[in-house]
Amino acid sequence: MTATASERRARRNRLATAIPEIPALLASGGLRGRNYAANPYPYRASSHFLYLAGEGIPNAYLLVHGDEHTLFLPKPEPDDALWHGPQPSIDEWSERVGCPVRPLGDLPRAIPPNTATIAPVDPAACLELEVLLGRSLEPSHRTDPDHLLELAMVELRLRHDDAAKRGLRAAAKATSAAHIAGMRATRVGRREWEIKAAMEHAIQTLGLSTSYPPIVTVHGEVLHNHAYGGELQSGDILLADVGAESVDGWAGDVTRSWPVDGEFNGPQRDIYEMVLRSQQTAIQACRVGVSYESVHLQACHSLTEDLVTLGILRGDPQTLVADGVHALFFPHGVGHLLGLDVHDMEDLGDRAGYTEGRTRSAQFGLCHLRLNRELEADMAVTIEPGFYQVPGLLHDLKWRERVGDRVDWERLAAFASVRGIRIEDDILVTASEPENLTRTVPRDPGDIRALVGDS
Amino acid sequence: MTATASERRARRNRLATAIPEIPALLASGGLRGRNYAANPYPYRASSHFLYLAGEGIPNAYLLVHGDEHTLFLPKPEPDDALWHGPQPSIDEWSERVGCPVRPLGDLPRAIPPNTATIAPVDPAACLELEVLLGRSLEPSHRTDPDHLLELAMVELRLRHDDAAKRGLRAAAKATSAAHIAGMRATRVGRREWEIKAAMEHAIQTLGLSTSYPPIVTVHGEVLHNHAYGGELQSGDILLADVGAESVDGWAGDVTRSWPVDGEFNGPQRDIYEMVLRSQQTAIQACRVGVSYESVHLQACHSLTEDLVTLGILRGDPQTLVADGVHALFFPHGVGHLLGLDVHDMEDLGDRAGYTEGRTRSAQFGLCHLRLNRELEADMAVTIEPGFYQVPGLLHDLKWRERVGDRVDWERLAAFASVRGIRIEDDILVTASEPENLTRTVPRDPGDIRALVGDS
Repeated sequence: MTATASERRARRNRLATAIPEIPALLASGGLRGRNYAANPYPYRASSHFLYLAGEGIPNAYLLVHGDEHTLFLPKPEPDDALWHGPQPSIDEWSERVGCPVRPLGDLPRAIPPNTATIAPVDPAACLELEVLLGRSLEPSHRTDPDHLLELAMVELRLRHDDAAKRGLRAAAKATSAAHIAGMRATRVGRREWEIKAAMEHAIQTLGLSTSYPPIVTVHGEVLHNHAYGGELQSGDILLADVGAESVDGWAGDVTRSWPVDGEFNGPQRDIYEMVLRSQQTAIQACRVGVSYESVHLQACHSLTEDLVTLGILRGDPQTLVADGVHALFFPHGVGHLLGLDVHDMEDLGDRAGYTEGRTRSAQFGLCHLRLNRELEADMAVTIEPGFYQVPGLLHDLKWRERVGDRVDWERLAAFASVRGIRIEDDILVTASEPENLTRTVPRDPGDIRALVGDS
Repeated sequence: MTATASERRARRNRLATAIPEIPALLASGGLRGRNYAANPYPYRASSHFLYLAGEGIPNAYLLVHGDEHTLFLPKPEPDDALWHGPQPSIDEWSERVGCPVRPLGDLPRAIPPNTATIAPVDPAACLELEVLLGRSLEPSHRTDPDHLLELAMVELRLRHDDAAKRGLRAAAKATSAAHIAGMRATRVGRREWEIKAAMEHAIQTLGLSTSYPPIVTVHGEVLHNHAYGGELQSGDILLADVGAESVDGWAGDVTRSWPVDGEFNGPQRDIYEMVLRSQQTAIQACRVGVSYESVHLQACHSLTEDLVTLGILRGDPQTLVADGVHALFFPHGVGHLLGLDVHDMEDLGDRAGYTEGRTRSAQFGLCHLRLNRELEADMAVTIEPGFYQVPGLLHDLKWRERVGDRVDWERLAAFASVRGIRIEDDILVTASEPENLTRTVPRDPGDIRALVGDS
């Protein structure tokens, strides 16, 4: 169930309490043309609007000023009934969103002075908002009220209310169905796009969509691989990073890496279990008060200890991690915030991910960490360590020089059949145990073996 | 197979021959953020760029000036190999597109005076192009060279070359698979989104995507219905307007209307066969030299004659059509141009659809006709008559008054179980018989009955 009208109102009231003096105007954004204006991409409202209104409504605005909340809607076109069918009435909108509704034409005169906003990703809506507010929304022109609104939205959206948790659970459920369908559809000789199609089908047949462009590849070492033409060959590992989005916009984000034949070979299994141990360690570390950077470093330590045990790295794990040597095989961060955006509130840069005053590390690996905050109850994060053999890094002379004899290249050659493995789940931080929202997605090699090719 | 380098060059040469004095600069457009910049919609290049370059390349520009064609590409980012994997080299791009490649940084100094362009749908690319050309691309600011470029592109893209026909046939093939999958997936009690999912799966599992937002609905009387939550109930007709897009961007566009139970009831079958007869009549009319408006009117006549025979309309069919009475049940045009855009070149308004000097009729029905040209060999069009009972029209007092006793409302009530039926195919005009590119999509009620629920 999507947020009730009173849950939507409660969100807006919390915003107004946080910035009592500052009126906030949020744009939903419009439909965006794919190859021409009337052939649009699937509609997705701005997440800030979506959060406060509870659903996406094209070309709408929400004005929150103290306890006055008003939804401004465009007038229906005369032809709407013919082309788009009966639309909700003003009263229905008002009931759903839980506030009065006024025509968009009233908005220019209704905007109080010093109204704050957040630029929507839709450029046309951004332009319209600039005209409405009479000022540029370029980052360098943001006003003090804009900054205070951003901070207030971050505070609100960092911790998930009951409606948000329902949304995240709905997304997790469909995400789980997608991964099971992907494992079942896997066959030697198929193309990556066939597995992607099976996974998206599992999501769409539940009435949901994807929350980000899926990664479904036998070249998991390419971190954001959006090509799907590769053929699944015996001995390959398929890496699938696919998440569903609930009807009200909440994201799932899960990665699994499974053997195309159902069974890992020995070196693959060693690496898989190493990544899984690192992931479970990091998940268990997701506790109230713990900094996410330390969760990341615990994942790195776990990986590094195992890499030493496997004989791939040489040296003291602590020192190897401090020197960033592990990042040769694990170049990205262990995860990120999860919410209405799969990288939640990334439209605000690092404002949501990094506690005020903290900035990105310059060290390779850590510089890609998207989250550096103390965890709090009701935050949702992903935990997604991985192991990759990226040719561009492994053959880079500067890397070779930097790691010296701390990498046993001969020993590494024994693991050549592992190009990329990542295991990712969605974790809700609670006052006690971390809750794995995506626990139903198979991760045990035995469970995976039972599913692969089983359709 | 997508266009070869020499086919791509031939297209550019034809353009340069048409406007020998005018340099043309076309932007491909970039990835567009869905909820934040780094979470993009699937990439689709501007169709004009796609036509001349033969494939989509984000943030690229193509400059065609006489027999000098140059592709300008953005510099790879240092991190590209890590995040996006190995990319084609400059030489590979040059070979594929069939022209020299230069870095984007060279473009500002390479633009000749009076260069023409066509505004891309991506607003960021549009802005960049305005900066490059030093002028506004608002419609009111288009230059004479811009107009000549538009006309030249229309002339080129109106008639399809061999590569285009291969693309259209590839799209048609996947579109056919989608409709067969949709029929098979149909069951009483399922949701519309389940059938939509099955149809999209059939397209995606072939490595293709959809060419427009699918319509899959038991409320076919809503012409552009993009809600998918309805339940399929016994006695319903499911209308599916779904098309695939080939890997190089060519569109399929097919509608079928099938009974959820597999079998039409009597009145449904009467109406279905009436629409099918109208469609076959219109397809047969698609000959070189025939005006598409007359194709539309032949479809209207066929429908109207049958409506009189069925007792729904009273009067002389000729007069009924002349008065636009049929438009009460068939309010839209019989079809449109088909190419890289599903409504081909609709970004240029009616410039492609309407022969110069012709404008839209004011009459309801005809005013929605998107194409009014004499047909020529190698044009592709859709033929998609329909019959709809739109409550907003049927209950409109002005309509009631206008049609008077020419509608037998009591007789019409016998057809209440038909809310909306449309039958649409993709037709290639040839020097002899029209070629139905989507002839393999089942349309005979017996063939449909054999498929519905068969999975």
